[in-house]
Amino acid sequence: MNSSDLLNLALPHVRALHAYTPGLQPTESGWVKINTNECPYPPSPRVAEALRREMGEEGASLRLYPNPTSAPLRHAIAQLHGLTDAQVCVGNGSDDILNLLVRCFCEDGHRAGFTLPSYSLYPVLVEIQDAGAEVIPFDRSMTLPVDRIAASTAKIVFLTSPNAPTGVGFSNADIEKILRSFSGLLVVDEAYAPFAEENAVNLLTRYPNLCITRTLSKAYALAGIRVGYALAHSEIIGLLDRVRDSYNVNRLSQAAALGALSDSGYYEAIIDKVKETRDYYINDWVSRRGWFTYPSQTNFIFTEPRNANGETGPAVAKSLYDFLYAHKVLVRYFPSHALTASFLRISVGTDDEMLVLHDTLDAWAKNA
Amino acid sequence: MNSSDLLNLALPHVRALHAYTPGLQPTESGWVKINTNECPYPPSPRVAEALRREMGEEGASLRLYPNPTSAPLRHAIAQLHGLTDAQVCVGNGSDDILNLLVRCFCEDGHRAGFTLPSYSLYPVLVEIQDAGAEVIPFDRSMTLPVDRIAASTAKIVFLTSPNAPTGVGFSNADIEKILRSFSGLLVVDEAYAPFAEENAVNLLTRYPNLCITRTLSKAYALAGIRVGYALAHSEIIGLLDRVRDSYNVNRLSQAAALGALSDSGYYEAIIDKVKETRDYYINDWVSRRGWFTYPSQTNFIFTEPRNANGETGPAVAKSLYDFLYAHKVLVRYFPSHALTASFLRISVGTDDEMLVLHDTLDAWAKNA
Repeated sequence: MNSSDLLNLALPHVRALHAYTPGLQPTESGWVKINTNECPYPPSPRVAEALRREMGEEGASLRLYPNPTSAPLRHAIAQLHGLTDAQVCVGNGSDDILNLLVRCFCEDGHRAGFTLPSYSLYPVLVEIQDAGAEVIPFDRSMTLPVDRIAASTAKIVFLTSPNAPTGVGFSNADIEKILRSFSGLLVVDEAYAPFAEENAVNLLTRYPNLCITRTLSKAYALAGIRVGYALAHSEIIGLLDRVRDSYNVNRLSQAAALGALSDSGYYEAIIDKVKETRDYYINDWVSRRGWFTYPSQTNFIFTEPRNANGETGPAVAKSLYDFLYAHKVLVRYFPSHALTASFLRISVGTDDEMLVLHDTLDAWAKNA
Repeated sequence: MNSSDLLNLALPHVRALHAYTPGLQPTESGWVKINTNECPYPPSPRVAEALRREMGEEGASLRLYPNPTSAPLRHAIAQLHGLTDAQVCVGNGSDDILNLLVRCFCEDGHRAGFTLPSYSLYPVLVEIQDAGAEVIPFDRSMTLPVDRIAASTAKIVFLTSPNAPTGVGFSNADIEKILRSFSGLLVVDEAYAPFAEENAVNLLTRYPNLCITRTLSKAYALAGIRVGYALAHSEIIGLLDRVRDSYNVNRLSQAAALGALSDSGYYEAIIDKVKETRDYYINDWVSRRGWFTYPSQTNFIFTEPRNANGETGPAVAKSLYDFLYAHKVLVRYFPSHALTASFLRISVGTDDEMLVLHDTLDAWAKNA
């Protein structure tokens, strides 16, 4: 059997797939890494404590399978949000949850909807299921297309709220308008909700067709452990559990997540600090640099850089991306959509990182 | 929307699914837990060392995403098996790899084959894909149905080798006979291969339609960290990577696995010890108790208990399972198949655990 015969064994749509492109994760040090919306501060000290306790001196507990349902973690998450344990499913990152959702609701003949621009994993997951996609476009105002989503006939619609990569938040009033009319399952991906003014959790009791996803990767400073979760009606959680791998979340990640969730005071302080830094730089870029920048309810800033000649556009954004990269400042550029190609997405870093960014932006603005 | 309307949004085959049933994972102490083929000995001390190094004092590295391709771990695995990095894909447990394989090769109209009895996850994964199944039965001899598999027209066939829950090993000569004729992808699930006389890794260079899966859950005493991997032609690995979640293996699990793989001497010693214990008890049960027991090339024993009246059968096996359970000895019972319902599957424990088992079997044999 040669390699083309070999590939012909695979499903045709899988052979044609393009994998999701994650942000760069450089392994060498020296970078100001503000490209994948990680938290610039370390996780709560209770995380390391919980990990040391789980491992013991010699890691003996690691020989045993983890709790298959992450039951203690489900319980802690339920308590945090005032829900029942049966309304929670824990995933190997919220990407695992999103994946389970497409596997439960989408296939050829069962379309999924998502807004554009938004989290670029949705179309990849929908393509893996060989399902049709209903793309619901934003315009430059980035206001939520409420009527368009409400009228969708897709079985499931994914909405990132606050949105990425724009950072724009949506009101519960608008989300509720959608839920009242939409006949499918609305997945509100609240990866960035801890940085936002509102979140949709209190809509869960009134709207069984709402599923909220959360992650510990951003606000909890735990991208490295891969824990996310779904909050939804128990029937939806039951579906996810039927498709979920029985040991999808390992022992250490369960322990680390429990440690983090027990320290809300620590996280309130770093979330406040991130928001303060964010708002300072948005104000600086808008008012001093004259850069159009969306209001952000997240831990990143989506801004349209303007060069020394007052020009904006894809070439300008790309030139700044490259200049920053050459100076070891790593941000994210999304050239493939007209509404994002003139912008850069910049995660909020520490004060020191933001000063390096600030100086590098000044250097670029002088030279460009 | 009421909850039946809600469920009607899901794919019909998902609503009808039965989830995989994992073995019991009791959370209270006091059990002799020999039910899920975990290693009775702790992992190498290098695992805890690697974890402490990865975490640092305060877990600061955990705020960053893991290496998306587990690149250093792929490299270590490739070195271990004498392969190239491009022939390796790392999963969140080998279940993740099996799941990726069904997503690449199976759907309605693209059947998957598997032997029965075997790892009971295969039919669950195939059902999640709504694919047809070609069930290839064993008979009580448990010899590999070589001609039957070779003649299969399924796109992909899963074969556990050595088999579970029987423990019976298969020869490379037989596997090679299959590979020479079979026109699909043969997945040889070598979860237990470190305890076997042979493994199929050296067939990879000659047969591009072979994919081997391995896990660190059994021989490496790391069921708690969820790491498994695929070894295959780079084109097959490329397919898996297109469907794989970009951060499927977290930072701590990558580090722990690297620590384990660096300590082959430690693992050779505990594998030898497990085999010695296994062979001692198989001999005892066959020759002294007169229990039919398959030869095992794994870390468990599949045995057909005989009660004081010399009887065997499902009721006898169930009675022993219940007796052991009542004495806090947890083994595995598979009542749903005629070839397994008279047997118990017992993982090899420590010497102390096996003595408790031994005494409890004696007590049962006297009373039953």
